[in-house]
Amino acid sequence: MVAPAGYLLDLDGTVYLGERLIPGADRAIAELRSRGRRVVFLSNKPLQSRADYAEKLTRLGIPATEDEVINSSYVLARYLSQRAPGATIYAIGEAPLLAELRNAGFTISEDPEKIEYVIAAFDRTFDYHKLNVGFQALRRGAHFIATNPDRTCPVEDGEIPDAAGVIAALEATSGRKVEKIVGKPSHHTVEVALERLGLPADSCAMVGDRLETDIVMGKSAGLTAILTLTGVTAREAVSEASVKPDYVIASIAELPGLDADLDG
Amino acid sequence: MVAPAGYLLDLDGTVYLGERLIPGADRAIAELRSRGRRVVFLSNKPLQSRADYAEKLTRLGIPATEDEVINSSYVLARYLSQRAPGATIYAIGEAPLLAELRNAGFTISEDPEKIEYVIAAFDRTFDYHKLNVGFQALRRGAHFIATNPDRTCPVEDGEIPDAAGVIAALEATSGRKVEKIVGKPSHHTVEVALERLGLPADSCAMVGDRLETDIVMGKSAGLTAILTLTGVTAREAVSEASVKPDYVIASIAELPGLDADLDG
Repeated sequence: MVAPAGYLLDLDGTVYLGERLIPGADRAIAELRSRGRRVVFLSNKPLQSRADYAEKLTRLGIPATEDEVINSSYVLARYLSQRAPGATIYAIGEAPLLAELRNAGFTISEDPEKIEYVIAAFDRTFDYHKLNVGFQALRRGAHFIATNPDRTCPVEDGEIPDAAGVIAALEATSGRKVEKIVGKPSHHTVEVALERLGLPADSCAMVGDRLETDIVMGKSAGLTAILTLTGVTAREAVSEASVKPDYVIASIAELPGLDADLDG
Repeated sequence: MVAPAGYLLDLDGTVYLGERLIPGADRAIAELRSRGRRVVFLSNKPLQSRADYAEKLTRLGIPATEDEVINSSYVLARYLSQRAPGATIYAIGEAPLLAELRNAGFTISEDPEKIEYVIAAFDRTFDYHKLNVGFQALRRGAHFIATNPDRTCPVEDGEIPDAAGVIAALEATSGRKVEKIVGKPSHHTVEVALERLGLPADSCAMVGDRLETDIVMGKSAGLTAILTLTGVTAREAVSEASVKPDYVIASIAELPGLDADLDG
């Protein structure tokens, strides 16, 4: 067997939980890097910039650059850049998403007559005005894309509504269906990550704590899929899953050991 | 045949269009009243108080009192008063809906631990904070009721998102389904209207411009269903409708003529 040349690492639940590093995650990633493995960090959240994530990882003891982080805002910007460079966009999302889109050369507009793409994202500043602008543009035929499909986002004391609420409100009022959701488990996220690693799918492993996003995405794209048990999934859930991981590890701290075994 | 003793009259599209009276609506209703017919006015909109509607009708030449108006806020207040008098409620809606609920003796709260009923309504002040409060209460087991099912509301220059957006956002994030929608075409609206008229269903007629709400509701509740063509429905649509009206009139101005024919 051959160990993966590249690792796609989910962040929340895999590398850290909120502000707390998963014990040993720093040493594990340093060890993999010392063996020459390439890593990218993945998040479905469009709430922070890639630079924010890099800064947080570095602060927690995992040196990282903006280029090593891929979130759903970035995947979206790449997706649109390939299909409609310079398009006029209306995004229901927070400031870092708008900044990512502006940086990629898109024009942000609130004029339904001009909007070519309506973007639905996780947005804690969502309101009726945004819903109405998106609705008016969709009624006039704008494309309808979303960053991520999540119903809820875990927070310190529970969960809060995620992008699914914005998508559903637009769908229910406009009668349109979202055309594409680019974040995990979409293949668009894997493609951007592999492009960044410069490696083919069968040389890489996806490591994450969610069966329905991380593991489904990894398996369907032909990566080795590794489940960690430090997030939302308990070991008992694996036997009932329709798509099963190739390997289950208690924590990312065990990843260097698995990597060594695969290198045997 | 016997003419109806009572008429349930839809408002927008039937009695008026926005601020403009349907020509002859004032004389038609005066004529019916002079024959001893009782009338109530129905609206699915929870945006104005019943007193506001009565004032508008009176201003447009149709003298009306608050007691002759039934909107979805009022139907909701009646529905809850029968099932959970004095309950603690969180309503995603505008000020007149909250006033109707307070007047009916309910406590309005933003504390998810205390909220027993979450109400989804047409709300042009909808925002993420409201979505999150509703979400948290639904996750803790609160009941989930809506005023009206409409996707959109017609306005002077088009349409704007209606209550369906609020319902969908709550459903998609909480994983809960709305338990009851009390406005048209629900039987709850008919029941409140008949109670107000003091008449049985088979002595009354429902008059409105929408096949899927006014006519469906009238027929399923056992009323005579009369479609007007001054609103959203064209005559050609009637032949394709799965639920057909008993009578089609060009305008409410023809209602006294139909009433006289039925009295033959």
